[in-house]
Amino acid sequence: MTTRASKRQKTEQKDAYHLIYWPSIPGRGEHIRLALEEAGAEYTDTAHQEDGMKAVTSLSSDHNKGDSTNPPAFAPPALKHGEYTISQTPNILMYLGPQLGLVPDVSEDPVGIYHVNSLTLTALDGLSNEPHDTHHPIAVMEYYEAQKEEAKKKAKDYRESRLPKFLGYFERVLSGDASKGGEYLYGGQLTYADLVLFQTVDGVSFAFPKCVEKLKGSGKYEKVFQHYERVKGRENIKAYLGSERRQKYSMGIYRYYPELDDE
Amino acid sequence: MTTRASKRQKTEQKDAYHLIYWPSIPGRGEHIRLALEEAGAEYTDTAHQEDGMKAVTSLSSDHNKGDSTNPPAFAPPALKHGEYTISQTPNILMYLGPQLGLVPDVSEDPVGIYHVNSLTLTALDGLSNEPHDTHHPIAVMEYYEAQKEEAKKKAKDYRESRLPKFLGYFERVLSGDASKGGEYLYGGQLTYADLVLFQTVDGVSFAFPKCVEKLKGSGKYEKVFQHYERVKGRENIKAYLGSERRQKYSMGIYRYYPELDDE
Repeated sequence: MTTRASKRQKTEQKDAYHLIYWPSIPGRGEHIRLALEEAGAEYTDTAHQEDGMKAVTSLSSDHNKGDSTNPPAFAPPALKHGEYTISQTPNILMYLGPQLGLVPDVSEDPVGIYHVNSLTLTALDGLSNEPHDTHHPIAVMEYYEAQKEEAKKKAKDYRESRLPKFLGYFERVLSGDASKGGEYLYGGQLTYADLVLFQTVDGVSFAFPKCVEKLKGSGKYEKVFQHYERVKGRENIKAYLGSERRQKYSMGIYRYYPELDDE
Repeated sequence: MTTRASKRQKTEQKDAYHLIYWPSIPGRGEHIRLALEEAGAEYTDTAHQEDGMKAVTSLSSDHNKGDSTNPPAFAPPALKHGEYTISQTPNILMYLGPQLGLVPDVSEDPVGIYHVNSLTLTALDGLSNEPHDTHHPIAVMEYYEAQKEEAKKKAKDYRESRLPKFLGYFERVLSGDASKGGEYLYGGQLTYADLVLFQTVDGVSFAFPKCVEKLKGSGKYEKVFQHYERVKGRENIKAYLGSERRQKYSMGIYRYYPELDDE
């Protein structure tokens, strides 16, 4: 921890971090929050600001062309840091990783940050984007009710085929030598990829409680579920999850529709 | 071009690049190929090797746990480079970018690589993943024919809502000040994000020819289609596209089903 803290100090930036994301859902912004919270970094969050919605809607407005330093963002979340506006969740994490001490030191492990990014992209693909698509398989801008029948089919495939495949993948990662013991995904210490896996497993457990209970009971993904508890129990994460800053799941990526879960 | 070439020289690695990807489709591997081809880098490609399939299937095998340096890959493409195996398309590009001179120099523009990554992620989301889902909206491992009715609905939404939204976004990027004139997406010179936008627009044009013709005719996305031609005409890209190394679209991400296109 001493090494981590001193590294963090060294790369600390003088400018504050400002997260721009929708209020009322954890959503993709949650991955950024968890990284900042784990590192004990100071940040502001539009989700808790009175005029926060305005910042979010102007970010992804059809009129936003960015500025001379920053291309426009396609969608929230975005991170404002000094003169920079960085968008796309895994990209923001990669930008923050070295600053927050949440990736291996590049001088000791030049490829570590790429492995952390790869693990992050896979968790977001299979445990965030695909769960989202289970309730919106046809059209993201239409109501769930209008695509409920297709959603049932998609969710069945997700529960029976895709979710076990992704959990199996992370079980292999935690069993592999590059994890250095299997406590964390890569290199024997916590990286932001661990926070992303925690958050996506948490979301999937909310959306498909019966299915996840059954998968947990199968014993095939023991390391993944142990990893989940390990991250959840970390001091700063635990404090954050118990705070009012942690928002409840509602109508975002992870939704609980009993008809999309196991019977 | 001189500056670029000298930078490339400086970061050139002694180890060869080895791309591991399925034969017979351009697929996601194509983004890696285009970066290597544009930079004139030497590489091998399993798509053109006799035992290439074996390398691909063992990469994403359920038994692969990686090694002491590298976590297992979830899926192809992967890039082998010396002792490293890097996976996930945008991650491989981020690894290659500085080595191939396809991102701004970090000492002059520390945030440039993150903007390039963000643009890449958005192009892959909206112009590669979403088009794929139009023909496989329910289950990726099932036949198209088994999900054809859902595919028609999904493709309609894609053509009418999502595709215009993403093209409109890139039109704004090319109109914005951070593009430095709108020839390329960011910073006034070619980056790998430009190659990704070219390849995804090319794929979408193959899959939805009538729809793209109509969108082109609308005049709303002039900069995007001019950008497409600009990248296509670059010396190394043009030579590559005319070579046997460039594979034809078939049953991959971009498929031509007349019933999924405009009438």
